[in-house]
Amino acid sequence: MKETEIPPEHPRAESLRIREKLVEHYKAGIVAKAGLFAHGRGEAFDYLLGEKTTKNALKAIEAAAAALLTAKHPVISVNGNAAALAAKDIVKLAEVTRAKIEVNLFYRSAEREIAIKKLLEAAGAKQVLGVGKAASAKIFEIGSERRRVDPAGILVSEVVLVPLEDGDRTEALVKMGKKVVAIDLNPLSRTAQFATITIVDNIVRAMPALVETAEKLKQEDRRKLESILSDFSNKKNLGEAMNLISQRLSELADKGTFISIAQKGKE
Amino acid sequence: MKETEIPPEHPRAESLRIREKLVEHYKAGIVAKAGLFAHGRGEAFDYLLGEKTTKNALKAIEAAAAALLTAKHPVISVNGNAAALAAKDIVKLAEVTRAKIEVNLFYRSAEREIAIKKLLEAAGAKQVLGVGKAASAKIFEIGSERRRVDPAGILVSEVVLVPLEDGDRTEALVKMGKKVVAIDLNPLSRTAQFATITIVDNIVRAMPALVETAEKLKQEDRRKLESILSDFSNKKNLGEAMNLISQRLSELADKGTFISIAQKGKE
Repeated sequence: MKETEIPPEHPRAESLRIREKLVEHYKAGIVAKAGLFAHGRGEAFDYLLGEKTTKNALKAIEAAAAALLTAKHPVISVNGNAAALAAKDIVKLAEVTRAKIEVNLFYRSAEREIAIKKLLEAAGAKQVLGVGKAASAKIFEIGSERRRVDPAGILVSEVVLVPLEDGDRTEALVKMGKKVVAIDLNPLSRTAQFATITIVDNIVRAMPALVETAEKLKQEDRRKLESILSDFSNKKNLGEAMNLISQRLSELADKGTFISIAQKGKE
Repeated sequence: MKETEIPPEHPRAESLRIREKLVEHYKAGIVAKAGLFAHGRGEAFDYLLGEKTTKNALKAIEAAAAALLTAKHPVISVNGNAAALAAKDIVKLAEVTRAKIEVNLFYRSAEREIAIKKLLEAAGAKQVLGVGKAASAKIFEIGSERRRVDPAGILVSEVVLVPLEDGDRTEALVKMGKKVVAIDLNPLSRTAQFATITIVDNIVRAMPALVETAEKLKQEDRRKLESILSDFSNKKNLGEAMNLISQRLSELADKGTFISIAQKGKE
């Protein structure tokens, strides 16, 4: 069997198809090898969450939409994995929330930046910041080229959505006084912990939900949005996400063997 | 920054170095792209386990050593990730337990098989089964080239150690009446659930521990080994592993935000 073939009867066919999408974009120079590992990590947490958007994630999505809609200069920071898995929804969300789109990579390379820009433009983006010399401002951050940002984008933003980012980036932005919205399946990660609002969900489900929620909340007045924001506690919400996983594991542990050979595919 | 540079101050430097090892072996044709995702998954569970070998894992390691030592034809089934991360310990374990080493890949290719064989030989292996036409026997398994095994190895074995394997393989072997010892960080996985003995641990820690335990238990008489085996319940042990993760998450959930910006690096 070739590595690209997915047996349709495979119990994890959907998950494998998402992998395949990342591999295609890896070959196209959009996704870094680190992005393949990172995706695998996310898969594990998604597995533990039951591969669905929880009520807990929906609360964070509501707060995230309110944060983006009330910001003067919201920015969506895009890396290779985010572009590969959610380019269209990134463009839609930018339209609904008037956010700018900025390419921001851990492993910067002119080729990768341009490939991501093209992918976003093909998905309908009118402007893509942060590519090449446009990323002329520096922000302090440990050992990464990501200290470079666009002065027209992240530098002047108050709210930055960082789907699938790593901890260094989030920490640096929060230290600069910005609100960071993260999409991260791992509630224990440094990104999840440092962010202002953490959506513990798979980007392929969270982004369409975020677009839909932003469209709805756009009809509400500013006071309503501000009260959603002030009612949200990331600490409390992350604790809930961890408890959800913990409870699920504990239930499975009580059952002990929960997959038998006869039940294959029901996993 | 180049993708191969790891900032020494990075809080996850050790984990990144293991990734780098896999990337090197990916470039050398030993690790498949699927192996990079799989490793990421494992990382997530290792993170949840606290990145250490638990007492629970040690119990499984003891049972695994007993199973290999009491078998007439023990076999260690090796894929790309196992070879990349544990070639030397695979060879040591084969020596201590008189096990045969067989290359067995989900994504078979002559090049990858030969590259893995060479890596194992460089680590001291005298014989490597399953390469090319040597894998002439077929076992029933869904949609994978792994249905091919070596008639001098897995086909005639009663105990097969499958570090980092996937569910299909394990299920097929168990259906054939073989005892399967799996090393899998995910206690919920199909491999973990189907295996006879599941070591829920990182291969880089579990393999040296398995070698050491086998060396010790080799001094014991057969009755002692058989009683270790009969006292071991994989169902119970997997339940314990899930509970360990669940408890850890629950404790962290009570704390809520457990990484603050000031405490970075203590993660």
